[in-house]
Amino acid sequence: MNFRLDEAIEILERTPQSLELFLSGLSAGWVQCNEGEGTWNATEVIEHLIEGERTNWIPRLEMILQDGESKPFPPFDRYSHLNEKTEKTLEEKLLEFKSVRTENISKLKQLIDPDQHLELTGIHPAFGAVKVRELISTWAVHDLTHMAQIVRVMAKRYQTDVGPWEEYLGILKK
Amino acid sequence: MNFRLDEAIEILERTPQSLELFLSGLSAGWVQCNEGEGTWNATEVIEHLIEGERTNWIPRLEMILQDGESKPFPPFDRYSHLNEKTEKTLEEKLLEFKSVRTENISKLKQLIDPDQHLELTGIHPAFGAVKVRELISTWAVHDLTHMAQIVRVMAKRYQTDVGPWEEYLGILKK
Repeated sequence: MNFRLDEAIEILERTPQSLELFLSGLSAGWVQCNEGEGTWNATEVIEHLIEGERTNWIPRLEMILQDGESKPFPPFDRYSHLNEKTEKTLEEKLLEFKSVRTENISKLKQLIDPDQHLELTGIHPAFGAVKVRELISTWAVHDLTHMAQIVRVMAKRYQTDVGPWEEYLGILKK
Repeated sequence: MNFRLDEAIEILERTPQSLELFLSGLSAGWVQCNEGEGTWNATEVIEHLIEGERTNWIPRLEMILQDGESKPFPPFDRYSHLNEKTEKTLEEKLLEFKSVRTENISKLKQLIDPDQHLELTGIHPAFGAVKVRELISTWAVHDLTHMAQIVRVMAKRYQTDVGPWEEYLGILKK
């Protein structure tokens, strides 16, 4: 076990800024490409991250603190952002992600005392009992997963352009 | 084929800044963790990226322009940075990467006219004839590969901390 609240927050703080720097101003080809039918482009990943900030991480933490194991979390719809088509630009979405994440880190610090709350449990609809520590670890790893996804999707755009080097580039085989 | 020189440069420009923002100031646990014996931590990945800037991409482009297919590229030792242990901090290495990359993008723009040079070829020691277009595409995808590696290595640090959510986090299975 490696979890420490302050170290998890280091990741949560950096993700929106890093993605903003990496994605802002990119050509449409980079931010609109995906891995084929039913897969997400970078813009859709940002929408999904925003949705998680609004409906997943903090609401579930609050439920654990308030209700414990007395009722399960409402399920998180991982595809709901695909139904809400907005006119916002990617840059606006990146700002929105940064802003809602900043608010949520404040809430996290207010809600969770690492000496008291990390082992508290709630009920996940599929997994059963889950701990505060596991939920916050997952929040950070979820960021890292989606950063990896964004760069993988973009890498695949040059799948054939790299010619024979494809053999050395494991990312193109995932 | 999707390659455009200006779009490839968009990636090359953003990588060092994004990694600097993401990695600077992280706790030692995040930047020193790896995926086990013989694998790289984030700091070693940055050293490898610097090494590529010094000995791989631009020198090979210059060889193609100067020698064409008359002699093969010297092989690039992907592990050479592991032999050069320096006392530099990660922050110093990130600055070095940003600085050498900035120089190399200037050289790239001076050397390569996309209307004239993209189809020129040189000889790769393992692959045979390779094109300028393929080399520059690979340079950009190589950045993306190593960004994906850095976040994957960090994600795995919380492999057991996430508890049952491991099942939903594909990054932990790679």
